[in-house]
Amino acid sequence: MFGLFLFLKIMETLNKLKENVEIILPENGLDEKLKQAKKEGRSLIIKLGFDPTAPDLHLGHAVMLKKLKEFQDLGHQIVILVGSFTAQIGDPTGKNKSRKPLSNEEVLHNAETYISQLSKIIDVEKSKIVFNSEWLDQLSSSEIIQILSKVTVAQLMHRNDFNKRFTENTPIAMHELVYPILQGFDSVKINCDIEMGGTDQLFNCTMGRQLQQTYGMDPQTVMCMPLLRGLDGKEKMSKSLNNIIGLTDAPNDMFGKTMSIPDSLIEEFLDLTTNFSLEEKQELIEQLAKGENPMNLKKLIAKNIISQYHDVKAAEEAEEFFVNQFQSQKFEEKVFEPVMISSIEAKNRITSLVELCSQLKNDVSKSAIRRLIESGAVQINNEKLTNPLIDIPLHPETKIKIGKRNFYELK
Amino acid sequence: MFGLFLFLKIMETLNKLKENVEIILPENGLDEKLKQAKKEGRSLIIKLGFDPTAPDLHLGHAVMLKKLKEFQDLGHQIVILVGSFTAQIGDPTGKNKSRKPLSNEEVLHNAETYISQLSKIIDVEKSKIVFNSEWLDQLSSSEIIQILSKVTVAQLMHRNDFNKRFTENTPIAMHELVYPILQGFDSVKINCDIEMGGTDQLFNCTMGRQLQQTYGMDPQTVMCMPLLRGLDGKEKMSKSLNNIIGLTDAPNDMFGKTMSIPDSLIEEFLDLTTNFSLEEKQELIEQLAKGENPMNLKKLIAKNIISQYHDVKAAEEAEEFFVNQFQSQKFEEKVFEPVMISSIEAKNRITSLVELCSQLKNDVSKSAIRRLIESGAVQINNEKLTNPLIDIPLHPETKIKIGKRNFYELK
Repeated sequence: MFGLFLFLKIMETLNKLKENVEIILPENGLDEKLKQAKKEGRSLIIKLGFDPTAPDLHLGHAVMLKKLKEFQDLGHQIVILVGSFTAQIGDPTGKNKSRKPLSNEEVLHNAETYISQLSKIIDVEKSKIVFNSEWLDQLSSSEIIQILSKVTVAQLMHRNDFNKRFTENTPIAMHELVYPILQGFDSVKINCDIEMGGTDQLFNCTMGRQLQQTYGMDPQTVMCMPLLRGLDGKEKMSKSLNNIIGLTDAPNDMFGKTMSIPDSLIEEFLDLTTNFSLEEKQELIEQLAKGENPMNLKKLIAKNIISQYHDVKAAEEAEEFFVNQFQSQKFEEKVFEPVMISSIEAKNRITSLVELCSQLKNDVSKSAIRRLIESGAVQINNEKLTNPLIDIPLHPETKIKIGKRNFYELK
Repeated sequence: MFGLFLFLKIMETLNKLKENVEIILPENGLDEKLKQAKKEGRSLIIKLGFDPTAPDLHLGHAVMLKKLKEFQDLGHQIVILVGSFTAQIGDPTGKNKSRKPLSNEEVLHNAETYISQLSKIIDVEKSKIVFNSEWLDQLSSSEIIQILSKVTVAQLMHRNDFNKRFTENTPIAMHELVYPILQGFDSVKINCDIEMGGTDQLFNCTMGRQLQQTYGMDPQTVMCMPLLRGLDGKEKMSKSLNNIIGLTDAPNDMFGKTMSIPDSLIEEFLDLTTNFSLEEKQELIEQLAKGENPMNLKKLIAKNIISQYHDVKAAEEAEEFFVNQFQSQKFEEKVFEPVMISSIEAKNRITSLVELCSQLKNDVSKSAIRRLIESGAVQINNEKLTNPLIDIPLHPETKIKIGKRNFYELK
């Protein structure tokens, strides 16, 4: 009787750990590793690699981090591996400008930023933070040759992006082939049991398996989490695509951004960004199918997200702010951002509508502003203006609305 | 008048240096390098790489060494680069058993053997001998990454053997791609002006050009000598193919081996292995065309070779020995190698013909011996025997001939 109970308990744990995971390699790898750890009376070593060039974490990263947290809560050892070796080298070809070499100080600074963000999800105190430059810097030239000999060119060419570039004659510098091998060697060094990553890391994580095998070790299990799509509903969430919800975003931003996702993303966000139970998620999806307004579900998701990364009170206030700011239709009730007339470049305090809007909203191109005006998305003192070249005299208390969310008042 | 004389002299030197060279890259590279050295009042640095795993030099190597000697006689600096780094690593995959890692002592010993053989052609005292482990051992992991970043995968895949293996799905271990890059880096380190090699080294030598360019240096000129074919007349001369004439072979061996080359190789041997003048070569070729017996030309070539690596007297004695040994048809006059009956494994001093011959000539497979017997190439006491299974009683003074050159007498 007790045996059955224990069995059910174990199955429950296992099912929970497998929830949302997109790939487990090998298929029974998680079961085996857990069994093995139990038999040997030890905890599993679970690795998450981190590139210290881009320390800003978003909800896409959180998908993996929450899975790590589950392992951590079961007593397993999380190892956060900072890819300091690669970061310090950057891209020696100089072609990839976003990968310039980082100094030791920059790496440390980025790692700190990263770790403080991690603490929003996992217990950093209980985690192990390691820098791979610790061992990769020490490798002698002949040791590197030894490591490289474990892998064939054809294997590396199986990685989708390498294969594509090779076929399309886009240059691949030799050192790029070396990086995934070194990432695999990291797994050897930390005795990794499970490497966690996004599905885009599958190839690199399998390198760890191969390297560990050639070093006579039991190969790690690879667990790949799905890649959360960004606000555009198309590409994966990524800072460079400017479609992210950052873990440190302010509550109002989190709310507004979540409300802006396309309806087709609702189910994915429910699954991957909220901490609703399986049953709750199921019910919400059913409601949606029955005709519930998608906006109401987005509000629930937004509040859930905010209560995870801030708190429940902040979530409620953000909802209130959003409703006041964007849902009430009265122009006058908006909160207007004051703008000093003196800060606007203009001859004799007169300027064209497109010029004025460009200066107010200078993160958008002038041609985009022009299209916004022509589509009726710009109002001056509650009056829609559609001619971009119309003259606007700059008077105090002039109120300008650009798009749905930008409100300015001249002072 | 004096200027014209000088010009003609320079042209003569240049033409001599270009004689027999199969590839000069870039085409005007030799002219340019000589001009440059003259202008800067310095000698050229000319590199020949050497793999210390196979220190036995043969006439194929001599083709390159003689060209180096020409440069040396003009006052240029020969650098013999011992590939000690690679030799000490060997083939880490363990697949290539002929490339097991060598100890420091073995490398030194092989280098010594090699250098003493070199001295048969070039002035070793005036040459510089360097070991590339001197700098490659010192490279840090990040320096290696920097070097690798200078070259793309596609460039390496242009090397014929890599391309072929990649296309045929024959594994290429990653470190194999690294070796040519490091060979190129050697040229950076020694400030190489001209790298000399066989045509099979063209790709590796161009790596040197590329690496030097990325390090802001004037790229080396590559000079590839033709690959001398071996005694079989088909494959290039190579120890592993057992078709070589070694620089340290005894005069009689040199003579016999040269006589064994197919007629189709006579012209190539005249060009690449003798030191006849252009006019002499021309005349000999004409004689051959007019119906001269090829054997007579081979004798001339053989004597010329022996007089280079031994002396004229040795050459004449070798010819005499050859004529006595192989051209006189009398079986009894041969020189028989004594073999103790006690050294032959046999029951009651009787054994089959194939078993006896196998034991006498144990560098040939039993099936090959069987075919030799069946084809009538084996004689016992001047009597041809073609049944491999016939019993042979082991009596003293029994004379055995196997093939054309192996004579034994039981004692």
